[in-house]
Amino acid sequence: MHYQLYYWTGIQGRGEFVRLALEDVGASYEDVARVEGDGAIARFLDGSHEGALPFAPPFLKAGRRVIAQVANILQYLGPPLDLVPDSESQRLYAHQLQLTVSDLVAEVHDCHHPIASSLYYADQRTEAFRRAANWREHRLPRFLGYFEQVLERAGGRHALREHSYVDLSLFQLMVGLGYAFPRAMQRLEPGLPCLRALAARVAERPRIGAYLRSPRRLAFNEDGIFRHYPELDDSR
Amino acid sequence: MHYQLYYWTGIQGRGEFVRLALEDVGASYEDVARVEGDGAIARFLDGSHEGALPFAPPFLKAGRRVIAQVANILQYLGPPLDLVPDSESQRLYAHQLQLTVSDLVAEVHDCHHPIASSLYYADQRTEAFRRAANWREHRLPRFLGYFEQVLERAGGRHALREHSYVDLSLFQLMVGLGYAFPRAMQRLEPGLPCLRALAARVAERPRIGAYLRSPRRLAFNEDGIFRHYPELDDSR
Repeated sequence: MHYQLYYWTGIQGRGEFVRLALEDVGASYEDVARVEGDGAIARFLDGSHEGALPFAPPFLKAGRRVIAQVANILQYLGPPLDLVPDSESQRLYAHQLQLTVSDLVAEVHDCHHPIASSLYYADQRTEAFRRAANWREHRLPRFLGYFEQVLERAGGRHALREHSYVDLSLFQLMVGLGYAFPRAMQRLEPGLPCLRALAARVAERPRIGAYLRSPRRLAFNEDGIFRHYPELDDSR
Repeated sequence: MHYQLYYWTGIQGRGEFVRLALEDVGASYEDVARVEGDGAIARFLDGSHEGALPFAPPFLKAGRRVIAQVANILQYLGPPLDLVPDSESQRLYAHQLQLTVSDLVAEVHDCHHPIASSLYYADQRTEAFRRAANWREHRLPRFLGYFEQVLERAGGRHALREHSYVDLSLFQLMVGLGYAFPRAMQRLEPGLPCLRALAARVAERPRIGAYLRSPRRLAFNEDGIFRHYPELDDSR
């Protein structure tokens, strides 16, 4: 199957969780908006196509199917890409973990946009400062402690019984959080040995390593989900 | 199958989306914390059980399985409760829609808690006022307009080809939003004929009607997701 991924150009964003899965197995895909521009996305959002209507990118076209929502896309891709174990209970768990990754990603976004996505960061900086301080103290350790415990329960090396799209997403979380909140992560990392080792192992997977060194992997920047605003990180 | 639902007592909250599915088909289930207290939830969150580790309630116990995340639970329950069409593409779409319901629910929560869940509303009222004003103007119409379009594309009566758990969740959204933001909803409702008719039809389904009149259906209150703070609604 040849896949077409639709996601905004210029940022890793939520699309990156899907890209990592496609890249890890060397799947045949094109990143449509990077070739045709963001306009390619609009014709799906306005509903002029048949089938499922996406609310927002990323969405994936697989044959005639249109599939939106990161966790839904990964759940769909897991079996054909061999990125999820066979058992139903492991698949349910994989998806549950991925949905918790999505929850964390939404909270990371709202650290720099607590008032509105439609406003600039500069227009909600005071609120962002307040939200990020509380979030780094309470939510970030809770999420990361949870995922660390998930890894421990599975034997330490993977979120599930074996390598899966969840491991790839946890890698992306660790790298993104390290970019956005380097000081907070430095504080928390001693308590996260399994997550740190997992992120290092994923980065060394042959196809992931090649992808990370390729121009297809965009750098993190202050338009994406993970943004480095030093005032939102731990103070020195 | 007999199901055990675990969710905080005292509020409808996220658990209500699962309850509505169980109630609509007259499934055999118990709402464990309402019998045993919220302590029943803690033993799953601390990981002293085997199997999948939930990050937060609601979670469902089905035999030995523990399944967390509302959309994941509904996806799991859909086939055995006959609350989702048979085709794979309709099931993917059902789940995608449910995930978009979850996104809306998270945004509703953050209207009254834009800074932190761990702080009282009174401690983030200024920020909540600012967030809710923007959200009612931009996000609420976008989400509801999206779901209205979804209904139109499917013929007007259902989100999918037939009745499903998604319709039940859209009912809950409409009722919850009507409680929390009565003036904003009054403004938007003329543009949402399919959603309004759907909510009215769901309320008249025999088992849903009986449930809504039963003591099992808690009233909305200012501890849940949908809260009525008049200052966060459209001004008169």
